[in-house]
Amino acid sequence: MKSFKAYYFFVKPYWKLILITIFIGMFKFGIPLTLPFIIKYVVDDLLLGTLPIEVKIEKLIYVMLGAFALFVVVRAPIEYFRQYFAQLTTSKILYDLRNHLYGHIQKLSLNYYQNRKTGEIISRMINDADQTKSIVETGLMNVWLDLFTLSIAIGFMFFMDVKLTLVSIAVFPFYAIAVKKLYKKLRAFSKSRSQALADMQGYLVERVNGISVIKSFTLEEVEKRSFDNKNRKFLQKALDLTKWNALTNSVINTLTTAE
Amino acid sequence: MKSFKAYYFFVKPYWKLILITIFIGMFKFGIPLTLPFIIKYVVDDLLLGTLPIEVKIEKLIYVMLGAFALFVVVRAPIEYFRQYFAQLTTSKILYDLRNHLYGHIQKLSLNYYQNRKTGEIISRMINDADQTKSIVETGLMNVWLDLFTLSIAIGFMFFMDVKLTLVSIAVFPFYAIAVKKLYKKLRAFSKSRSQALADMQGYLVERVNGISVIKSFTLEEVEKRSFDNKNRKFLQKALDLTKWNALTNSVINTLTTAE
Repeated sequence: MKSFKAYYFFVKPYWKLILITIFIGMFKFGIPLTLPFIIKYVVDDLLLGTLPIEVKIEKLIYVMLGAFALFVVVRAPIEYFRQYFAQLTTSKILYDLRNHLYGHIQKLSLNYYQNRKTGEIISRMINDADQTKSIVETGLMNVWLDLFTLSIAIGFMFFMDVKLTLVSIAVFPFYAIAVKKLYKKLRAFSKSRSQALADMQGYLVERVNGISVIKSFTLEEVEKRSFDNKNRKFLQKALDLTKWNALTNSVINTLTTAE
Repeated sequence: MKSFKAYYFFVKPYWKLILITIFIGMFKFGIPLTLPFIIKYVVDDLLLGTLPIEVKIEKLIYVMLGAFALFVVVRAPIEYFRQYFAQLTTSKILYDLRNHLYGHIQKLSLNYYQNRKTGEIISRMINDADQTKSIVETGLMNVWLDLFTLSIAIGFMFFMDVKLTLVSIAVFPFYAIAVKKLYKKLRAFSKSRSQALADMQGYLVERVNGISVIKSFTLEEVEKRSFDNKNRKFLQKALDLTKWNALTNSVINTLTTAE
């Protein structure tokens, strides 16, 4: 609940941009959905219809021109604006977040700074803030969009056959449980990866600042091994996260396909 | 040519892993390709066939079980291993790259360090190295995979109708020209975004190191405005890149659809 509040604080100023993005997204996803209707019209009314052949060909040309306009001429600007608005919103939120963070760390006591390496603090402000970008994008825009398309699809399905629809959405509860369990651990892995990155960056800032000492004492080889150690730890944490990520994706994809 | 050589140097030790990943990727992309064949069999041989109805239903059940096994049981582990191996390879290459970079910067003269901010050097080692991850993944694995699927598809098309295939690949040269022009500018935008990020990080390291001075002189508000300046510059560069990226994607998607 607390994290939702923090999230809401940053997202709120951009609700108009977000609505525009979701709206354009609906258009984008709507375009491929017209394909079955076009094919249905061509097969049922034109191929199997009773119209004279010349009329059929004329109508077919119109349909093809329309489909070309929709898929080639209309789609490109829609895709452009969809991506542009999504990135514009997330970049602006990230900008606000960094400014807010910088204001915040300046208020912290000197004690905070004494107990942490410079590179660690920087890593939090640069890398961890960067990661929220993808959270905003998936968590905000795609979830709403998916819910929208899903409810339309389920509405259509109920309209066509109630029993079959109930059978086909029987897998939903499993999906919800799987998502909850998998994401909880994903967060833990992601946290320890961030920590390893912060450690590595903290190490680097100290070493770059003290390069004259390293060079004076020709400690380059020792430093190399010691950096390799930090680097390897980060690799390990990144691979742990990767493994769990791959598992999460494959489970969720399988469940949505089984649906 | 020079950049290809550097690329090859880091990629070479993992050619076996890369081959495995591409091979699993072929399987992954092959699975959905079986769907038209399954539907063809069901429609032509079962629905429209002359077999007695009981035999048809029995065969249909086998087909459905087979499709279920393929799409639900076989697909999940394949997806898991595909993602896992791709990330394993790119993470290991990134690990090598960081170790190599650290070895390299230690060899640079003290003059190099005097002319650059610590945060700038760190940003190159952390953020810019991180960006190569996606280059390796798309540039290496997906390009080969796309070429593979494309050549199979074109082979099939030539087998079916030579003239129609020639018409349908007539858009290829435009595609090649568009990709070349667009990517050139994309690289320039990406470079200036990296520079802005390095500037911001350089600023941050200096300020975090000198926090006691900022606090002593109560410069917090001044610092906030001055950080906002760096942050805004980065936002601007990120948006420039984003705009061009959205343009590139929409143009390329339109051309591949028109194909």
